[in-house]
Amino acid sequence: MAAAGGVVHISEIEKYKGDIDVLILCGGSATDLPEQGPELAALFNTVDSFDTHAKIPEYFEKVNEAATKAGTVSVISTGWDPGLFSLNRLLAEAVLPEGKEYTFWGKGVSQGHSDAIRRVAGVKDGKQYTIPVEAAVERVRKGENPELTTREKHLRECYVVAEAGADLAKIEHEIKTMPNYFSDYDTTVHFISEEELKANHSTMPHGGMVLRSGRTGKDSTQLIEFGLKLDSNPEFTASVLVAYARAVYKLSQAGESGAKTVFDIPFGLLSPKSPEQLRKELL
Amino acid sequence: MAAAGGVVHISEIEKYKGDIDVLILCGGSATDLPEQGPELAALFNTVDSFDTHAKIPEYFEKVNEAATKAGTVSVISTGWDPGLFSLNRLLAEAVLPEGKEYTFWGKGVSQGHSDAIRRVAGVKDGKQYTIPVEAAVERVRKGENPELTTREKHLRECYVVAEAGADLAKIEHEIKTMPNYFSDYDTTVHFISEEELKANHSTMPHGGMVLRSGRTGKDSTQLIEFGLKLDSNPEFTASVLVAYARAVYKLSQAGESGAKTVFDIPFGLLSPKSPEQLRKELL
Repeated sequence: MAAAGGVVHISEIEKYKGDIDVLILCGGSATDLPEQGPELAALFNTVDSFDTHAKIPEYFEKVNEAATKAGTVSVISTGWDPGLFSLNRLLAEAVLPEGKEYTFWGKGVSQGHSDAIRRVAGVKDGKQYTIPVEAAVERVRKGENPELTTREKHLRECYVVAEAGADLAKIEHEIKTMPNYFSDYDTTVHFISEEELKANHSTMPHGGMVLRSGRTGKDSTQLIEFGLKLDSNPEFTASVLVAYARAVYKLSQAGESGAKTVFDIPFGLLSPKSPEQLRKELL
Repeated sequence: MAAAGGVVHISEIEKYKGDIDVLILCGGSATDLPEQGPELAALFNTVDSFDTHAKIPEYFEKVNEAATKAGTVSVISTGWDPGLFSLNRLLAEAVLPEGKEYTFWGKGVSQGHSDAIRRVAGVKDGKQYTIPVEAAVERVRKGENPELTTREKHLRECYVVAEAGADLAKIEHEIKTMPNYFSDYDTTVHFISEEELKANHSTMPHGGMVLRSGRTGKDSTQLIEFGLKLDSNPEFTASVLVAYARAVYKLSQAGESGAKTVFDIPFGLLSPKSPEQLRKELL
């Protein structure tokens, strides 16, 4: 194993075959993981946070083929969404089949939307917050099972640093009318100084909630809610990956192989505690 | 199998060996399940909601021995606490090891405390609600990780129907000072009529939440919260048992045997959907 804190170039990774219990893949979902995931699963047990929801089935098949052939275990697409939110969607649907599920994201920084702002002409820097509409969340909590449009579920709040002399009205209009990213939402644009952006908008908070309201018996409304409030999205995602790395190691030791998702992993494997201890202390 | 809606005496149950996929045991934890659990696990796949937390390890061993010998699968102690709350305690501890966990119950009817009220001389009928102290919940949500006493976490609210001519002050004093049940809590006693009790306090709502606030990195507070708001505690518990019955059946078909808890069951097995469908629709 590399010395603690040592950094090794990925081109040398094959040398470490047999020395690493589980590789935690931190590459991006757009171009890194589609290649790295299957390649590294052929050499090591892996955990990743591949999060392009629509491409998960295809990615699963590729990693599964490599891992099955190599006798390794790979947990794909973990983190909080996909990951803990997915688990709660499944659990709530299995327990309350007659119901409706709602996922709200935020308040938090969306990287994709922040990037979109920064591509607008005249914008020097910017951050975008996704914010759940509190009134919509309350309607779901009351068991109303409302039909909610995109606009009714989330607000988008933008903090923008403009280039000197830029046309602020034009920037604001361009952001608010941007298709896919902002036009379907109530969007607010705040122009601030570079110093303000640095001082107040440099961390990566996020969070959100998965709610399901369902009916049982004649007329009982039952609500299941799972929520996260995160000061640091990347640190929390990393913490989830580490918990799943424990499970990967245990499954590998038990002789399993292939790709898995959070749906395939019993929670007991996430903990360093023994099954006896878990039953005694946490059940 | 018995005809839909048919009722069969438990003494005849052995006749149904081989005809029943999974038995859902609905007996009580005090005296029914300690006997019925192991006995029935020797004949059938079972699911139960054994909820005497301190005796779970012993109960697990007995059911496990019977089920292993018989080649059956038994999920014990499921429902919401133990059950879904336990799962969230484990998950949150595995992801945020440096943190503190809080479980709040209510607002809901506590059967044990309602029984205790009804045993007081001069009381004709009564219902007790356990209520989380909102200020305590808010401190946890803010990431303060407070040390909370029993009194600071929950309130107890009692609705009492007194016998004609009973000494109300004496009843109130006796309830409020009852050790274990009420003396450690801020307890409110409301005297109401039998009609009012029937009209406003005859359902079995319950709920509660599991929160864990933890630290990651240098100074990031991360909060995980799972909550339930249930119009009917028994109907929701039954819904969880049915979901776990699906898992028991699948595990049994896969050739597994022995006692299991919620910690041993991957969520994928709770759903009637296939693994492919779950990855596509819910991940």
